[in-house]
Amino acid sequence: MTSSDKPENASDTAAAEPTSVAARDWATASADPQYRAAVVDLLGALAYGELAAFERLAEDAKLAPTLEDKAELAKMASAEFHHFERLRDRLAEIGEEPTRAMEPFVAAYDGFHKQTAPSDWLEGLVKAYVGDSIASDFYREVAARLDSDSRNLVLAVLDDTGHGGFAVEKVRAAIEADPRVGGRLALWARRLMGEALSQSQRVVADRDALSTMLVGGVADGFDLAEVGKMFSRITEAHTKRMAALGLAA
Amino acid sequence: MTSSDKPENASDTAAAEPTSVAARDWATASADPQYRAAVVDLLGALAYGELAAFERLAEDAKLAPTLEDKAELAKMASAEFHHFERLRDRLAEIGEEPTRAMEPFVAAYDGFHKQTAPSDWLEGLVKAYVGDSIASDFYREVAARLDSDSRNLVLAVLDDTGHGGFAVEKVRAAIEADPRVGGRLALWARRLMGEALSQSQRVVADRDALSTMLVGGVADGFDLAEVGKMFSRITEAHTKRMAALGLAA
Repeated sequence: MTSSDKPENASDTAAAEPTSVAARDWATASADPQYRAAVVDLLGALAYGELAAFERLAEDAKLAPTLEDKAELAKMASAEFHHFERLRDRLAEIGEEPTRAMEPFVAAYDGFHKQTAPSDWLEGLVKAYVGDSIASDFYREVAARLDSDSRNLVLAVLDDTGHGGFAVEKVRAAIEADPRVGGRLALWARRLMGEALSQSQRVVADRDALSTMLVGGVADGFDLAEVGKMFSRITEAHTKRMAALGLAA
Repeated sequence: MTSSDKPENASDTAAAEPTSVAARDWATASADPQYRAAVVDLLGALAYGELAAFERLAEDAKLAPTLEDKAELAKMASAEFHHFERLRDRLAEIGEEPTRAMEPFVAAYDGFHKQTAPSDWLEGLVKAYVGDSIASDFYREVAARLDSDSRNLVLAVLDDTGHGGFAVEKVRAAIEADPRVGGRLALWARRLMGEALSQSQRVVADRDALSTMLVGGVADGFDLAEVGKMFSRITEAHTKRMAALGLAA
């Protein structure tokens, strides 16, 4: 395979060449139908994740004790919506129907949010912060394994996350004011992480193309052990963040 | 009063000069404390209106039958949030505490939305469309009466409304498919307008500075008859839009 531009649907190329996927652009890398399907899955999963996050953050903004707090959560929600737009537009650009790409992931995200509806403002803040951080970690892990065009998109969306920082200060202040709050929120954060992992496993089990990419069938350097390591790194980063927040994770 | 820049808090100026407010900039016009208070009220009312609209549109997006429809309503919600940001930032820029400026209007907007929670997707669409259109009409009416800086802000926010157009097609199709839907939605639109007018009256009755500006005490050309005419124009435009939608208003 050369690095020159190829029509997206070219199928006369050898997919499993040793050339790094990360060194190819989309036109070249997507000639492999399995890689293409995996990226469509990935973009669909990320896109619906952002739309669902928009909806839940907007919902959780109702729990805000002040107008300023409400505006902060609304700002995160709006940022998630713009991520959704970029991912959806990219799906359309590569000739995929965005709705069809998102649909396989609706049940997992909706299940996650249904299981983790915050019962008060602090739980909402912890969820916003944890969700935002885990999403960033995951985007960063995955980006490195993608063709250059897909990577640039994922990094651009990633670059615009990190709105969760405002939550840290509020949560820390609440724990200082009443240390028992810390125990309750630590349990809550653990439940969030557990639910996120269990929904991720469900997705990995259901989606062949995506899983194959993650375990190294198509993209670079991901075997089953590597996926395990990725989950460990994400969990470790979560634990550190919780400790910084004053929560035992 | 000269047209040269003045400190915002200068109080040594004659407020009721015949010079048109519309010909002045904020620095000059706001030297009149009553005009200043009226604009702060107006920006506070618009800002909270946008934040409340964000919240309700995001909520109504849940009623969407498809992911595409959900994304359309989420897009409107996100646009409202950005309007909120501009208005809030302007309040801060002129040295006002945004939350304090918004608070007097929370009850009216929350009351409106509480009284007009859509019971299904079509009611949500009609509300999004009607709300967006009335907001545009009102912004346009008010902009002409403001100092040049406030006017530019209001027109910039106005310029970015009109996301409600997508609702028209959907509502019209639903009425064609089942004409009885038209009767129900016509009643609904009438209720929306009635509730909006009754909450506006409540605000006008409560807020001295704003009302005085609207009835011509400070700004240009608004006397009580003129306010009545403004409401008539907005109601008429609403009626025309409803007719275009296939609804008797």
